[in-house]
Amino acid sequence: MATVHQLTPARAPTLEPMVRLVAGDLNQVNAVILDRMQSEIPLIPELAGHLIAGGGKRMRPMLTLASARLVGYTGARHHRLAAAVEFIHTATLLHDDVVDGSDLRRGKRTANIIWGNAASVLVGDFLFSRSFELMVEDGSLKVLKILSGASAIIAEGEVNQLTAARRVDLGEDRYLDIIDAKTAALFAAACRIAAVVAERPEGEEAALAAYGRNLGIAFQLVDDAIDYVSDASTMGKDAGDDFREGKMTLPVILAYARGDAEARSFWKAAIGGHRIADTDLAEASDRIRTTRALDDTLARARHYGQRAIDALGLFPACPAKDAMVEAVEFAVARAY
Amino acid sequence: MATVHQLTPARAPTLEPMVRLVAGDLNQVNAVILDRMQSEIPLIPELAGHLIAGGGKRMRPMLTLASARLVGYTGARHHRLAAAVEFIHTATLLHDDVVDGSDLRRGKRTANIIWGNAASVLVGDFLFSRSFELMVEDGSLKVLKILSGASAIIAEGEVNQLTAARRVDLGEDRYLDIIDAKTAALFAAACRIAAVVAERPEGEEAALAAYGRNLGIAFQLVDDAIDYVSDASTMGKDAGDDFREGKMTLPVILAYARGDAEARSFWKAAIGGHRIADTDLAEASDRIRTTRALDDTLARARHYGQRAIDALGLFPACPAKDAMVEAVEFAVARAY
Repeated sequence: MATVHQLTPARAPTLEPMVRLVAGDLNQVNAVILDRMQSEIPLIPELAGHLIAGGGKRMRPMLTLASARLVGYTGARHHRLAAAVEFIHTATLLHDDVVDGSDLRRGKRTANIIWGNAASVLVGDFLFSRSFELMVEDGSLKVLKILSGASAIIAEGEVNQLTAARRVDLGEDRYLDIIDAKTAALFAAACRIAAVVAERPEGEEAALAAYGRNLGIAFQLVDDAIDYVSDASTMGKDAGDDFREGKMTLPVILAYARGDAEARSFWKAAIGGHRIADTDLAEASDRIRTTRALDDTLARARHYGQRAIDALGLFPACPAKDAMVEAVEFAVARAY
Repeated sequence: MATVHQLTPARAPTLEPMVRLVAGDLNQVNAVILDRMQSEIPLIPELAGHLIAGGGKRMRPMLTLASARLVGYTGARHHRLAAAVEFIHTATLLHDDVVDGSDLRRGKRTANIIWGNAASVLVGDFLFSRSFELMVEDGSLKVLKILSGASAIIAEGEVNQLTAARRVDLGEDRYLDIIDAKTAALFAAACRIAAVVAERPEGEEAALAAYGRNLGIAFQLVDDAIDYVSDASTMGKDAGDDFREGKMTLPVILAYARGDAEARSFWKAAIGGHRIADTDLAEASDRIRTTRALDDTLARARHYGQRAIDALGLFPACPAKDAMVEAVEFAVARAY
């Protein structure tokens, strides 16, 4: 009889099964990260360490490790590659915070606030270079191709997002293009490389890439929804950040599309940067709720979450699969 | 009888022989550059093109091409790799201009002034990723190792320079460490990879790396000197930029070390950012000249230039070697 995994968990899903599954491997990855962020230039480990030790979930390296477990990989190459993935992610965060002028991340002051934009840009470049050194040491051209391709797509997605800033008429499709590039591409690559090092068939590679990509989109959609849920357990993100920065996300896109002329003029002013008071945020959250923009952003997230889970269909039941399914359930349940 | 190349040219040396030597190849490289800086996101080719088409000398790709000619390489792999080298360089320039807050480069407004810091950071990241994609397409792990290593060293050098900013007591050795990393490492890698694709012996690889590294140091030293030569043919660089930014370069390091208490307090104020008027620049240039700091910066440059030329000793005489020797002579003669 077929096992049908559906997004209707009996209890609140958590990341715990995945954390437990990869705990031993993750220690190895953390050792590589710690070792390879060192430099004779003291500012580098100081600044990199602030972010790397700063309460991140290590979501992407965990996905590499869990995927490796799923495909029965028994070697150690994935530790170095998972560290490379985390370095790419960290470099991106450092540059993102400069680009957005953010002052808080995960409840801590950002590196650009503490050490300045220049240091954040340059240490980001360093971590990005280090990630390539790690991949080169691994020696797989296929892995290099996947991760250098993902890096280029992330950068393209970031530029796309930048040119979309404060454009209230952005539309859902272009928004999806952006998050597909800036978030989902690295999730996909992180999962896919596990199949490559395990020398699994193309079909499993594609399945893991699809799992990662869809999870990444779901993850980003929920993140964007959380920004408008004032009482959310926010995982360190400050509610209202996107709103105050005039960032176009799906809740806003839907509320704008569904709104009347009066609503649209509110959103134009808000996204244009003329409504940044707490009362404006309250009004925005209210408009997003009453147009069902929040519910439907989460419904979209569940759609991609379900696709992520179904992408795992060809793998037999095992603890790794259960953990990866629950990770999706957790990702889409965060905002409730 | 041995041919002794010395830095005493009978006529004014130029880059012309190298430009002529590699002209055909450079067209191929430019085609790769143009092709690979494209993107569906219009801002990317627009911003990248501004800098890439903006009058750069293509010094680093020319070095790859000339080195390939020197070792008798007859394939076409070096076109793609020379483009990768230029992309790394371009990405570095974009980030440098953000870090330094520069408003002019090669006599044109910088990308960060036209499109903003955020766009410059992100398009730099894109070009950096693209450079890795080009290398991965080439497929040589050895080349990937050399260029990813150089990238990490460049980023380290940039951070080192940042932490050295406005430190008047920097010292010549630490300064040399900085330019070795931020400038010479990519010159060395650009030359060295030609020997790798041509599958030449380790000795030739090391010789080309030494040529590039020493040329890179000489090149940077002369650049730093030019900043204090008001009537120089400046190759697009504005005299006084380093001074106004409080950048520690060898002319300042020597003038400070050789100065009395009064001179040192001038330099402290200047490097601290309290002397940015044209009269201050004139005074600084004067102090650098009278302490022979300018002459001796150029003498240091000639030392490294001579080492670059001697590194080519093991290669037989040929037009490529002549062009590479004259390129060094040109590099060190620019400030006269």
